[in-house]
Amino acid sequence: MNFKSDNEAPAHPAILEALAEANQGFATAYSEDRYSNRLNERFSEVFETDCRVVPISTGTAANSIALAEISPPWGAVLCHENAHIHNDEGGAPEFYSHGAKLVALAGDNGRLTPDSLAAAIDGAGVHGVHNVKPSVVSITQATECGTVYAIGQVQAIAEVAHQRGLPLHMDGARFANAVVSLGCSPADVTWRAGVDVLSFGLTKNGALNAEALVVFGHDEWLEGMQRRRKRGGHLLSKMRYVSAQLLAMLENDLWLELAGTANDHAARLARTIEAADGCSLHWPVEANEVFVRAEPEKLADLKSRGFEFHIWPGHNDLARLVCSWATSEEQVAELARAISGR
Amino acid sequence: MNFKSDNEAPAHPAILEALAEANQGFATAYSEDRYSNRLNERFSEVFETDCRVVPISTGTAANSIALAEISPPWGAVLCHENAHIHNDEGGAPEFYSHGAKLVALAGDNGRLTPDSLAAAIDGAGVHGVHNVKPSVVSITQATECGTVYAIGQVQAIAEVAHQRGLPLHMDGARFANAVVSLGCSPADVTWRAGVDVLSFGLTKNGALNAEALVVFGHDEWLEGMQRRRKRGGHLLSKMRYVSAQLLAMLENDLWLELAGTANDHAARLARTIEAADGCSLHWPVEANEVFVRAEPEKLADLKSRGFEFHIWPGHNDLARLVCSWATSEEQVAELARAISGR
Amino acid sequence: MNFKSDNEAPAHPAILEALAEANQGFATAYSEDRYSNRLNERFSEVFETDCRVVPISTGTAANSIALAEISPPWGAVLCHENAHIHNDEGGAPEFYSHGAKLVALAGDNGRLTPDSLAAAIDGAGVHGVHNVKPSVVSITQATECGTVYAIGQVQAIAEVAHQRGLPLHMDGARFANAVVSLGCSPADVTWRAGVDVLSFGLTKNGALNAEALVVFGHDEWLEGMQRRRKRGGHLLSKMRYVSAQLLAMLENDLWLELAGTANDHAARLARTIEAADGCSLHWPVEANEVFVRAEPEKLADLKSRGFEFHIWPGHNDLARLVCSWATSEEQVAELARAISGR
Amino acid sequence: MNFKSDNEAPAHPAILEALAEANQGFATAYSEDRYSNRLNERFSEVFETDCRVVPISTGTAANSIALAEISPPWGAVLCHENAHIHNDEGGAPEFYSHGAKLVALAGDNGRLTPDSLAAAIDGAGVHGVHNVKPSVVSITQATECGTVYAIGQVQAIAEVAHQRGLPLHMDGARFANAVVSLGCSPADVTWRAGVDVLSFGLTKNGALNAEALVVFGHDEWLEGMQRRRKRGGHLLSKMRYVSAQLLAMLENDLWLELAGTANDHAARLARTIEAADGCSLHWPVEANEVFVRAEPEKLADLKSRGFEFHIWPGHNDLARLVCSWATSEEQVAELARAISGR
Repeated sequence: MNFKSDNEAPAHPAILEALAEANQGFATAYSEDRYSNRLNERFSEVFETDCRVVPISTGTAANSIALAEISPPWGAVLCHENAHIHNDEGGAPEFYSHGAKLVALAGDNGRLTPDSLAAAIDGAGVHGVHNVKPSVVSITQATECGTVYAIGQVQAIAEVAHQRGLPLHMDGARFANAVVSLGCSPADVTWRAGVDVLSFGLTKNGALNAEALVVFGHDEWLEGMQRRRKRGGHLLSKMRYVSAQLLAMLENDLWLELAGTANDHAARLARTIEAADGCSLHWPVEANEVFVRAEPEKLADLKSRGFEFHIWPGHNDLARLVCSWATSEEQVAELARAISGR
Repeated sequence: MNFKSDNEAPAHPAILEALAEANQGFATAYSEDRYSNRLNERFSEVFETDCRVVPISTGTAANSIALAEISPPWGAVLCHENAHIHNDEGGAPEFYSHGAKLVALAGDNGRLTPDSLAAAIDGAGVHGVHNVKPSVVSITQATECGTVYAIGQVQAIAEVAHQRGLPLHMDGARFANAVVSLGCSPADVTWRAGVDVLSFGLTKNGALNAEALVVFGHDEWLEGMQRRRKRGGHLLSKMRYVSAQLLAMLENDLWLELAGTANDHAARLARTIEAADGCSLHWPVEANEVFVRAEPEKLADLKSRGFEFHIWPGHNDLARLVCSWATSEEQVAELARAISGR
Repeated sequence: MNFKSDNEAPAHPAILEALAEANQGFATAYSEDRYSNRLNERFSEVFETDCRVVPISTGTAANSIALAEISPPWGAVLCHENAHIHNDEGGAPEFYSHGAKLVALAGDNGRLTPDSLAAAIDGAGVHGVHNVKPSVVSITQATECGTVYAIGQVQAIAEVAHQRGLPLHMDGARFANAVVSLGCSPADVTWRAGVDVLSFGLTKNGALNAEALVVFGHDEWLEGMQRRRKRGGHLLSKMRYVSAQLLAMLENDLWLELAGTANDHAARLARTIEAADGCSLHWPVEANEVFVRAEPEKLADLKSRGFEFHIWPGHNDLARLVCSWATSEEQVAELARAISGR
Repeated sequence: MNFKSDNEAPAHPAILEALAEANQGFATAYSEDRYSNRLNERFSEVFETDCRVVPISTGTAANSIALAEISPPWGAVLCHENAHIHNDEGGAPEFYSHGAKLVALAGDNGRLTPDSLAAAIDGAGVHGVHNVKPSVVSITQATECGTVYAIGQVQAIAEVAHQRGLPLHMDGARFANAVVSLGCSPADVTWRAGVDVLSFGLTKNGALNAEALVVFGHDEWLEGMQRRRKRGGHLLSKMRYVSAQLLAMLENDLWLELAGTANDHAARLARTIEAADGCSLHWPVEANEVFVRAEPEKLADLKSRGFEFHIWPGHNDLARLVCSWATSEEQVAELARAISGR
């Protein structure tokens, strides 16, 4: 039973149906098809504002293209020390941005704090050209720790950034899980809270390979993003299949339904862990990831029973359990039983 | 009726079936799934040698990653002046290679010639560090002109390159069309003829988005290619869907069957054009592309009848007609009738 | 006797005196010293307009920083096929610009022509993101062929560029020679003719290592140029020694005096060649370089007599003779005698 | 009185004499002159081994070219959190390396420790292509804190690096000060202790602009370093003037004499501070920099008396006092009196 990553789940059947439907006949290449052409309008409805959408097939590319557009090569991207862009993208943000520096900051539960962010921005760059130049703030929603920024927390971060002339990027690889967790509208925790560009991820949430940059009020970034997408080899000739996935996920709020399922599974596991002996939650469970602390022997025992999950690098008593839309109630129940030892 | 590009054709039904099959259950992410893991073996059968495969979802990325791995940033990539890497990839090879220079050479019918290539390599780089350094030769098979390098022609190019210490890259966006046209084995026109790395394209030939680098005898390039793929944001978390497409296409030689269909269509159009008044073939038709020269009025007339195709930039009397696996015999017949004026 | 390059000449005594004078006591580092601080004012006098100056110690860096600031990484720099930036800088413009493409155009006597430039700009970029984007025009004054753009020729090039939204860069490695040749003011052939940024070179003209970017009416480029200079490792801590050279050269028009000497030498050689049997001028001699066509035996004979010069790559009957401020009348006379065979 | 930086000191008279001597007549350009050609031999004598030398005019460029040659673009450079390459070069290492990541580690007194270095290397890169790849260790000698690595400390760092396949780079902007401080031979604290490449700095030590990469036993890096130097615009046409400075400094151990003077000044200030009330040394004084902790009022008082120095960013009670070869005994005495309040 796979609790390793939502990346390892299959795509939802609605996605395959959307691909089949998009596969009727010829379509203009390079993102000029009828699916891609509907994205701006459709996302503008979902986000309740006139936004612009750049479909991209991976989150790493989406993040990197966004950051490269906002930050000059001599810029600094301020992010949490656990951020995916800092740790897990093999240097893609540095590649796309031609060498911008990622400045990683500490913060409890995977969240940047306004104060430490303000101090970091104010302290960097005091020596002019001798320093890199703070250029963009990036937060992850939901965070790498399975927590979620409250709306007010996003607002506070945005305020710190904007007061200093820096835009705010949100890495939303698990954005749907955060929105469901907060019970808010997508708008509330993005542009209304000060987010300037969102990497909107659906791959982890049941798509094959479908992500998008959603740009709020910065049309001046569009050309550069599209140029960078092309130069990165991410302007798919048959983009219709990516765009069709995006549209299918938004249909009837499927994206929120699937994220809700994953979150519910995680919440159940969290309750089990809190109640069980010999293990505890390492971070609050607010989305679809559960970080459990337990004796290495106990974790090994779970693995031997067929539960697959990752041990946190460098911490043999910390395991990450990820639930997905495709995780079944039975699997969760079985894992819960194994954890609680009953 | 779409003769604009094979990029605009839908995917073959077998591809969608392969996606559906690959969609069963969880699978290890990031190219470690059971489909991706079979690629080396499967391609080694098809290419009759022990080769290594790096799946990538776009041809631009495949080309750029290959060239970047072979050429240092101060290198020169020698290619035909019509090459896609030089004209149509928005600077992606320069981006991935960190600034290598594409040196474009003339050559009839879209083909480099050994003599001009030798002269170009020998003439470049004579001033040491003041010049860029000739580092790799890239040819396109089938060419951008719809022609095909004969096996001996590839051999001659490879000899010129190898004698000077340069590897040979083949951009095979329409490799299947070339293989069918030559009636040879894939091995004959690649590694047996001296090709060191092939960008093996299937997207134009009926896949959704499936290409691969096929590396012959250069395992030392693998790490860099995989690093560059990751940094480019092209290591799909759900790579299984790309790899499944590649495998499905190789099954029962589907890739050759589809290319054969497209080639046959093109050949029929070519015969029609040769026989018709008021138009002529601009380049020999050896794959699935037909370049027809006709009065602008005639071309406009064809467009007004619903035939879609591209006019060659800067030449209002030159049209490109592309046939695909999805082009129907009826469409070809209809276009043929319109061309011949009957 | 060295006719290989003006690069091989020593520095003028006034330069060493300026270094000695600048060497008095401590001075603020990183271009904030009293010499560097005078550059804007001093150059504004010389160029008769309020311009901004960025001192840099090499011409390759000056050119590359200028082009990188103006052109995005996906841009195209249009230049003459003989341009130093295209052939002789080891890929530095591509490095600094993060992969911009140099588009080299033909043109008699080393000069771009307005018509071919207009055609090239208009023809490039028609496919949007699939193409690189024409972004800047760069001309060399004096040219690599030893000729000079007349004021009207610069104006015509600038008009073509500006009408299409492209700025005009001038590589002035031998700018002094051009100004003396034209007998105009520096302003006439730069900003008054439409030049937006000049790489102002003095190293070939008698400095140790002193060049500068002179920016006309584009203060918005300054920050990026200064950032790129720092990132390139070209913000010398002891910049005072570069700036002092620049100021010394402008003092009493020393820069023009030295260039005049070199030009006069070249003119004398040109007259000799025109009058001599068995050799001819390959390009008009308008600055300090003389391109002479002669039998390889004759050129070898000159070499055997101790005259040092370069044979043009790939042309064994074409030699380049470069005169400098440090070339003596006797050396010129001796070479003239050898050429004329008397 | 300038205690701001050794960068602000003038050049030593012997340097100007060397420039004047090098200025006799013509010389082959681009580092092929008789001064540049002697560097390998001369440095091999000084370093008691057959080493290779690449002259470069700035330390930022020297560091960046070295790191870029050793680290792939997806590499990680491990360094101290105070390292100049990390904080003060405006992103130059990232630029030259095409986006490598600088991983900054804590360490008392400006020194990396073998244990934390080992842990950092071992912990990084465990996720393969998802992580950047630890590629090179860089230490600064003397450190940014004015301390010096003992020979055994360099050996221990080198051992950690080499055991893991990583080369060791030494940023020697103040290498002379360290050698004098240690009283060892240059060889003892470089290649004999495991250093693979040294950025040998002389600009801070009394040159105009003269640094060099000294490469020990890695001839395979030479071509890349020379290519990168050219692409960075650092292959001076008149390199003779840089090389002549390097040679002049090595003559009769002038470089050690000048560093010794600066170190002695710093030691005297250190003794004064240790004995004085109201101030203390923040880091041990082992080279030519003194970090003094005192009330902001006291520091302000010193400034008001005409002593120039830097306040450490973010710490208003910490001042850096830098002594140079050009600092006079009188200046030191006057500052000492002011500090001790007598």
